[in-house]
Amino acid sequence: MKKVDLIEQIRKKKSYLCVGLDTDLSKLPLSFKEMEDPIYEYNKIVIEQTMDVAVAYKLNLAFYESVGYKGWISLEKTLKLIPDNIFKIADAKRGDIGNTSKQYATTFFKTFNFDAITVSPYMGEDSIGPFMEFEGKWVIILALTSNKGSNDFQLLESGGKKIYEYVLEKSSKWGSDNNIMYVVGATHPDHFSHIRSIIPDHFILIPGVGAQGGDLEAISKYAMNKDVGILVNVSRNILFPDNHLSFPDNIRQEALNYQKQMSVFVK
Amino acid sequence: MKKVDLIEQIRKKKSYLCVGLDTDLSKLPLSFKEMEDPIYEYNKIVIEQTMDVAVAYKLNLAFYESVGYKGWISLEKTLKLIPDNIFKIADAKRGDIGNTSKQYATTFFKTFNFDAITVSPYMGEDSIGPFMEFEGKWVIILALTSNKGSNDFQLLESGGKKIYEYVLEKSSKWGSDNNIMYVVGATHPDHFSHIRSIIPDHFILIPGVGAQGGDLEAISKYAMNKDVGILVNVSRNILFPDNHLSFPDNIRQEALNYQKQMSVFVK
Repeated sequence: MKKVDLIEQIRKKKSYLCVGLDTDLSKLPLSFKEMEDPIYEYNKIVIEQTMDVAVAYKLNLAFYESVGYKGWISLEKTLKLIPDNIFKIADAKRGDIGNTSKQYATTFFKTFNFDAITVSPYMGEDSIGPFMEFEGKWVIILALTSNKGSNDFQLLESGGKKIYEYVLEKSSKWGSDNNIMYVVGATHPDHFSHIRSIIPDHFILIPGVGAQGGDLEAISKYAMNKDVGILVNVSRNILFPDNHLSFPDNIRQEALNYQKQMSVFVK
Repeated sequence: MKKVDLIEQIRKKKSYLCVGLDTDLSKLPLSFKEMEDPIYEYNKIVIEQTMDVAVAYKLNLAFYESVGYKGWISLEKTLKLIPDNIFKIADAKRGDIGNTSKQYATTFFKTFNFDAITVSPYMGEDSIGPFMEFEGKWVIILALTSNKGSNDFQLLESGGKKIYEYVLEKSSKWGSDNNIMYVVGATHPDHFSHIRSIIPDHFILIPGVGAQGGDLEAISKYAMNKDVGILVNVSRNILFPDNHLSFPDNIRQEALNYQKQMSVFVK
């Protein structure tokens, strides 16, 4: 998907909601567990209930791999449910030496039809390059993640700059804002203004709202750019909501709540 | 597998050879491509020809994922061919927020029966911790990789130390030399003495010998410790050898050559 088409969807839906399909088999209602493909069937409901307000879906590979080869069948079938005008992210955090990254890129962009894949920057340019050779496809590079461990190395300083700043500066030269996005966790709202000074035009994928405690209003204020420029991911709070409605209305209600909050910020 | 058992195998076989099952479907002979499960059938031959001189097999997940769900069936069947006294590594380079890493750990250590998994350190302690909660299982943390891109961030300096040194120092405190190993590429022989001063007792998994140009003699000299303490991985040169023998003797001959060179260094 092209950047211009993603922006169009955001403005049309007045939403920058990415629904995270972290479909944990152990958390599914018993009625689903008895089905032949529980993960797929649950995703089907979630997608039906949210596709008018979501501009992206992020599939967390861990939850598909955890059930062995059957998980890859669930993944493939799930992807076919998602319309072409919604952005499809493989949250796989891959990255390896060149010939291996090339294999991963072929898998996620050709065998499957993802628009984007999350990658770890640790192994440097040649581990990410092969993902950028596909027209209309994206890498989403981990910069500053939402977890506590982001302090261990990402916030280390080297010559007056933090490691994640080096990641932004260096890697943004390997491609453009038409094929690179960055992951910055919602749990670091104080870093967004500075991050925007380094990458004013790139999209930022922001996990950590909801179960991880990030504040939607703060990040919307500080992380947006002229094109909106952010995708905010919510996984657990939408997949397994804790509100007074019954399934699947409870899922729809959560998604609508997020969209409503977001609509205020979409200019 | 316990450390003591791995060391015993190394001394018994006079070998620290890890055979990398980077089984690239596109490189297989035509006769295999026509079989129902080409990757599994090829691995079967490779394992038969090398299991008396290999102490470990490393399965590069990219090459299994690249054929979709069928690759996971090949992976599962391949693992069953490998005897219990040989160390089984999932080269998956995973690492995510806690609840996701936990899923990955369950997948690789329970659903499959790997002894170890490679992980990226970028997301810090809580991304790696969940892998260390399994008795007798290992994480193999990327420290200094074999590719050119290792210069981009791993060799950045911060307060007089390189990032990979911080990775070694910090992460070695998250577990012990009984559940953590490190990846250091064979293409950095000049760093091994220094690395050994930081982690004298940990096993090091060393890729990059063979196709990537690393020198087996140099690394054996500088990277070994009193327990041998290294696993040297060879993938392409053993899987798809270029010598005068016919298949599958050509595979066996390459593995024997490596074992012979290694036997000199196993004291």
